[in-house]
Amino acid sequence: MTEDLLKRRSIRKFKENDVPDTLLNELFTAAFQSSTTGNMQLYSVIVTRDKRKKEELAPAHFNQPAYANAPIILTFCADFNRFTRWCEQRNATPGYGNAESLICAILDTTIAAQTFCVAAERKGLGICYLGTTTYNPKEIAKVLNLPKLVVPIVTLSVGYPDENPPVSDRLPIDGIVHYETYKDYTPERIDEIFQGKEALQENKKFVKENGKENLAQVFTDVRYSKKDMEFFSQKLRDFIREQEFR
Amino acid sequence: MTEDLLKRRSIRKFKENDVPDTLLNELFTAAFQSSTTGNMQLYSVIVTRDKRKKEELAPAHFNQPAYANAPIILTFCADFNRFTRWCEQRNATPGYGNAESLICAILDTTIAAQTFCVAAERKGLGICYLGTTTYNPKEIAKVLNLPKLVVPIVTLSVGYPDENPPVSDRLPIDGIVHYETYKDYTPERIDEIFQGKEALQENKKFVKENGKENLAQVFTDVRYSKKDMEFFSQKLRDFIREQEFR
Repeated sequence: MTEDLLKRRSIRKFKENDVPDTLLNELFTAAFQSSTTGNMQLYSVIVTRDKRKKEELAPAHFNQPAYANAPIILTFCADFNRFTRWCEQRNATPGYGNAESLICAILDTTIAAQTFCVAAERKGLGICYLGTTTYNPKEIAKVLNLPKLVVPIVTLSVGYPDENPPVSDRLPIDGIVHYETYKDYTPERIDEIFQGKEALQENKKFVKENGKENLAQVFTDVRYSKKDMEFFSQKLRDFIREQEFR
Repeated sequence: MTEDLLKRRSIRKFKENDVPDTLLNELFTAAFQSSTTGNMQLYSVIVTRDKRKKEELAPAHFNQPAYANAPIILTFCADFNRFTRWCEQRNATPGYGNAESLICAILDTTIAAQTFCVAAERKGLGICYLGTTTYNPKEIAKVLNLPKLVVPIVTLSVGYPDENPPVSDRLPIDGIVHYETYKDYTPERIDEIFQGKEALQENKKFVKENGKENLAQVFTDVRYSKKDMEFFSQKLRDFIREQEFR
């Protein structure tokens, strides 16, 4: 009963067919039934289908192919705006412009987004998470007209798959699961856990193409460098503060 | 095909039966196949089954019944420790003690946790998210022996259901989904979106029991007050800094 989850993979190339609104709504209904903090449902979703709007949003996602050829883009936002407006309108005093509230909303948002993905994949759709969302939240907010107390967290490309990529490798389970307490990793354990990944032909090729000594250096020097992560951290922090989460 | 997702509900009362390790491992395998930032799998899971350990961890979850009577507690942690150790061991220079890295790890963690939930519910298990995790991360980290660059994000109670609660009410979909741009909520829309929830008999009872004028005040004055949210925000921020995400 978990077969579909085991053989899933992200899709970055989509057919041109649109996803009908009836199907989208069924998937949203399923997604929104997931767990949510105190049943507050601290999220909103923006559907991008309009060609002009999609082009306007493209630079915020670095024009990546997984964005460009999807018929539908969904931006799942942590949203304390709606709930706060309700409180204010009911003579209740909301206090949600803070870190704890934001983390609750981020969890609600991500839980709903992931349930959407599971439901979508079961219906034959393909999805891809775009990591660019937390790199360029301000640019996204501008295009989508997000008010204060709303922060884009997850962007999904959604559509019918036009490719059939292999299932991605993953670390061994016992390298991730700990019993009773966290057993910190010895150098020997690190070698054991990562050796499968390092031995993959495609990863060896990746190292060579990037002119690096090993796979870890591809991550630290190319894909997720200290400099980039610190740059995007500053942007993210500034934006979160602008959105009045302090 | 989305029926199971539509009729799911959180479970807070469990049978005594343990969940076998073979089943747990199947669920973890499914969970870990979900999308993850750059295939880094920035999470660890701590399984709590041992009675003494569970008692030690109980105060961090305010001894709530949903915690106390579950045979298994899973703490899903954002984890950049394992990846950082790997990098250091490969002469690569990691730079992941920052906000952007933490948010990537939080997303990875929550995505994996939610896939675990969907898979578990399909297998007849019940789950409940414990919101206390981000209230008391330091206390949890101490009991579970979490090193730097590891932050508990999601705690799940897991077991076989010993109750049959109704499906929770949710806001109407069109109160959550926006097309092309975010349409900010007018007072009329807020009334429309929340009226179903406010009209529920159980919520009216809830308002009365708490001696409040309306449901919003139960949230702002009792369940998620400004004072509490700000108190927990400060704790969370301090802890995140201690774990060396700056």
